[in-house]
Amino acid sequence: MRYSIADAARRAALALVVSAALPLAALAEEAGEKTDVSSFTLDNGMQVVVIPDHRAPVVTHMVWYKVGSADEAPGKSGIAHFFEHLMFKGTSTYTNGEFSKAVADVGGNENAFTSYDYTAYYQQVAPSELGEMMGFEADRMRHLVLSEENIETERQVVLEERRQRTDNVPSAILSEELNATLYQNHPYGIPVIGWEREVEGLTHDDLKAFYDRFYTPNNAILVVAGDVEPDEVRQLAEKSYGAIPRGPDLPQRTRPMEPDQKTARSVTFSDPRVTVPNLSINWFVPSQRRAEKGEFEALAILSEVLGEGLRSRLYQELVVKQGIAASAGSYLQASAYDYSGLVVYGEPRGDADLAAVEKALAAEIERIKKDGITAEELETARKKIERDMIFARDSQVRTANIFGATLATGGSVEDITGLSERLAAVTPDSVKAVAQRYLDLSHAVKGYLLPKEEEKRS
Amino acid sequence: MRYSIADAARRAALALVVSAALPLAALAEEAGEKTDVSSFTLDNGMQVVVIPDHRAPVVTHMVWYKVGSADEAPGKSGIAHFFEHLMFKGTSTYTNGEFSKAVADVGGNENAFTSYDYTAYYQQVAPSELGEMMGFEADRMRHLVLSEENIETERQVVLEERRQRTDNVPSAILSEELNATLYQNHPYGIPVIGWEREVEGLTHDDLKAFYDRFYTPNNAILVVAGDVEPDEVRQLAEKSYGAIPRGPDLPQRTRPMEPDQKTARSVTFSDPRVTVPNLSINWFVPSQRRAEKGEFEALAILSEVLGEGLRSRLYQELVVKQGIAASAGSYLQASAYDYSGLVVYGEPRGDADLAAVEKALAAEIERIKKDGITAEELETARKKIERDMIFARDSQVRTANIFGATLATGGSVEDITGLSERLAAVTPDSVKAVAQRYLDLSHAVKGYLLPKEEEKRS
Repeated sequence: MRYSIADAARRAALALVVSAALPLAALAEEAGEKTDVSSFTLDNGMQVVVIPDHRAPVVTHMVWYKVGSADEAPGKSGIAHFFEHLMFKGTSTYTNGEFSKAVADVGGNENAFTSYDYTAYYQQVAPSELGEMMGFEADRMRHLVLSEENIETERQVVLEERRQRTDNVPSAILSEELNATLYQNHPYGIPVIGWEREVEGLTHDDLKAFYDRFYTPNNAILVVAGDVEPDEVRQLAEKSYGAIPRGPDLPQRTRPMEPDQKTARSVTFSDPRVTVPNLSINWFVPSQRRAEKGEFEALAILSEVLGEGLRSRLYQELVVKQGIAASAGSYLQASAYDYSGLVVYGEPRGDADLAAVEKALAAEIERIKKDGITAEELETARKKIERDMIFARDSQVRTANIFGATLATGGSVEDITGLSERLAAVTPDSVKAVAQRYLDLSHAVKGYLLPKEEEKRS
Repeated sequence: MRYSIADAARRAALALVVSAALPLAALAEEAGEKTDVSSFTLDNGMQVVVIPDHRAPVVTHMVWYKVGSADEAPGKSGIAHFFEHLMFKGTSTYTNGEFSKAVADVGGNENAFTSYDYTAYYQQVAPSELGEMMGFEADRMRHLVLSEENIETERQVVLEERRQRTDNVPSAILSEELNATLYQNHPYGIPVIGWEREVEGLTHDDLKAFYDRFYTPNNAILVVAGDVEPDEVRQLAEKSYGAIPRGPDLPQRTRPMEPDQKTARSVTFSDPRVTVPNLSINWFVPSQRRAEKGEFEALAILSEVLGEGLRSRLYQELVVKQGIAASAGSYLQASAYDYSGLVVYGEPRGDADLAAVEKALAAEIERIKKDGITAEELETARKKIERDMIFARDSQVRTANIFGATLATGGSVEDITGLSERLAAVTPDSVKAVAQRYLDLSHAVKGYLLPKEEEKRS
C-alpha cells in the first residue's frame, strides 16, 4: 500500500504509542528453540541483528538510531521527531519522495517512529529488494538535503501534527502535563513531539548539528528480520552501510536523573469534549537496564496480576464484582533507557463517580502491598507473559521492533532470549517487595480527565 | 561581627530567600531627588554602579555575577550555589579564610547569596577599606584554588546545608516539588541549591569550566553604595578589577521557556511535623523584563490590593471578617530574568478547615477578576509601594541589592528610577485585565502542606 509522507508520519505515531506502551511481554523472546538470531558489527561500528523467518517471502529492514527526544539539548525539543519527517525528503542522490516511490513500486510498506530514546525507520519488501532498500537507507543516513524549503515545509507538517494529536485531544493534553509533572528533572518529562514554541524555533544549524552528531553508522543498529540468511545480510550491509565512514564517538548517554519524589501530585484537565471522566495513578520505576536484578520482571508480574487483562484483580473487582467501573487496569511501560512508567487507571460506570473508582483502585493497591500475590497468580501471570511472547513472534515487524528497541535502549540480545529464565526466578515475595517499594500513593502523580461541567476541587 | 564560612553561608540563604521573594515594592527607586546614581563600564567590560550615601562613614561593596542556577547545564544543578561556598576558600594569592579575616579585622560584615539568575558577594566596611576589599574580591574572581580538598570539604557543607534547610523542613520539601511542578520546562523548576545526587556528582572539571566561563569582569557588575564619590570608586576599580583581562563573550542568556499551561495541578506533602495545614495557589507570570508594557506594574498593584498587608482584601475578608484564617495573602516575586511568581496563600484558624479557606480565597480571586479594583484601592496600593520604596532607601545594603538584582536580571538603572512614573500609569482597568489574564484557577498549581493524620484526598 502506498501512502504519503503525512500518512507515514501518522502511522508512525501509532507505532510510537504501541512501542512506548509495550508491555514487558512484548520484550519477549522471539529466539529460543526456533530462531537463530545472529548479530555482528560492521567495521564502522554499525551493529547488525539478523532474525531469520522463512514463513513467507518477505523481509523487514529497519535502522534504529540511538537518539530520541531525551537526547535533545534544552530548548530544542522536537528535533529528534523532526528528523522522522525530514528523512522522507530528498538527499543529494535522490529527489524528494523517490525512496517512498521505490518502496511503493515494489508493493512494500514503510514507516518511521520516534521515542524518548530512539528513532527508527523501516521498510517491508520482498527479499530481492533488500539491497535496494539498504542503498536508499544508507544514502539518507548521511546525504539528507537540509534545505530551508524542506525544513519550513516539514515544520508546518509537524506543527499541524502536534495540533491534531496533542492540542486537540483532551487525553493528550492531560498526558503531556502529567509527564511534565511526573518527571521533575529527567527529559522524559518533555514531549517527544516537542513543545510548540521550541519546534517553531528550531534552526537549520540546530538540525545540521543534530544530524551530523547522531545520524552515523556507529550510532545505528540495523535489524533485518525475514526470509534471508545472515551471510547475505552481511554482504549487502557491508556494501551499503559499510561504505559510510564512522562518525564522532559519542559519550555514554547520561541524562539528568530524578530526585527522590516526596509529594503526592495531581494534574487535572477539564474539557467539554470529555464525556466520561477517568483517572490514572502514575509512578516512574527503574527501567529494565537500571533496575536491581529481578526487580523489573517482578514489576511486570505485579502489573499483570494487578491490572492487565480481564482476569486481573482490578478488572475483576471494579468492573465485574463491584460494577462501578467501565474499565480498570494497569500497565508497565517497557523499552526505555532510564525509567519505565507504572500506571493504574479506571473509568466510572453508571451512577458511580470517579471518587468511588479511585477509592477502589487504592484499596486494591493497598491489598497487594499488604498481602502480596499467591503462587497461582504468579504462575498464571508468568504463563500469560510467555504466551504473549509467542504471539509476538507471529509478527515479523513486532519481533524486529523488540530487538531494535531493546538494543537501542542499552539492552542486549540476551536480555530478550533470557527473559523466560528471568521470569522463572520471580517469587511471590519479590513481587510483594516491589509493590511495597514502588506503589506509594503519597508519592504518586494522579491524572484526572473531567467533563467541563464536573470541575473537580483538588 | 565575625562569623565562620558556614555562618556566612547560612546568612546567605536568608538573603537569597529575601531576594527571591522580594516584592516589587523593593525594586523601588532609591535615586530620584536625593541620590545621584552613576554608572560606567571598565575597559574589560565590567559594569559599575555607584550610589553615594553620606549619612554614615560606611560603604557597601558588592560584586554581582550574571550567573545563577538557571544557567547551569542539565544534570549539574547546584553548581552556581557551590561557588558561593568555594569563593570563601583560598586563592593562589591568599590562604583559606584570609579574606574573611581581613573583613573581620576591620570590623566589617560580609556575605554572599545565589539565586536563579545571579550570584553576589559583598562586604560592608569603612570607606578607607574599600580599596583593600576590591583587591581581595578582584583576586578571587580569577585566582580561586579549586583543589580536590576544597571541593570535597565544601561539597559536604553544601549537602549538610541542603539536609538542614530543605530535606528536614516540610515547607521546603513542598516548595521544591511545587516549583518543579509549576515550571514544566524552564530551569526555575530546579532548586537553586541543586538536587542532592547532582551536587554529589559535580566534578573538578565541571567547576573549573563554570568558573572560567562565568567568573569574569565582563560578566560581573560592581555595585558600591555608601560614603564615597564615583571618581574615587572608578580609580580604585580600575586599579583592581580593571587589571583582569576580559573573559569569553557570552551569548545572551536563553533558557527553555514554558509552554502554555493547560491543566490544574496540585502538590501535597503530609508530615507529622506539620501542625497547622496551609495552602498556596501559584502561577508564574512574565518577569518585569519580559512583560508587556505596564503589565508587571499592574500585577504589583493587583497583588497589593488582593493580599499584601493587613488592609488587603484577603486579610480583611478571611482573617478579620470571616475569621476562618490565621493568615491569608498574596505576593509577587520580583527580580527574575524570565518569570516571576504570583502566589496566593492561606492557613485555617479554629474550626475552619483548609477547604473553607481555599473556597474563600477562590471567591476573592473570582471577585477581583469580575469587578476589578476601585480607584481608591489603586491609589492606596500605589502609595503603599511608594512608601516601601522610601523605607528601602534607608538600608544601604537593600538599596545596593535592588540595583544589583535589577541589573543582573536584564534591567537598567532607569527601570529603578522610573518605577514611580510607571506605577502612575496603572489604571483600574489594567489591573482587572491582568487579573483576568493570569489568575486562572484552572491553570494554577496548588500546594498543600498537611499534618500527617489529615491525609488529603486529591
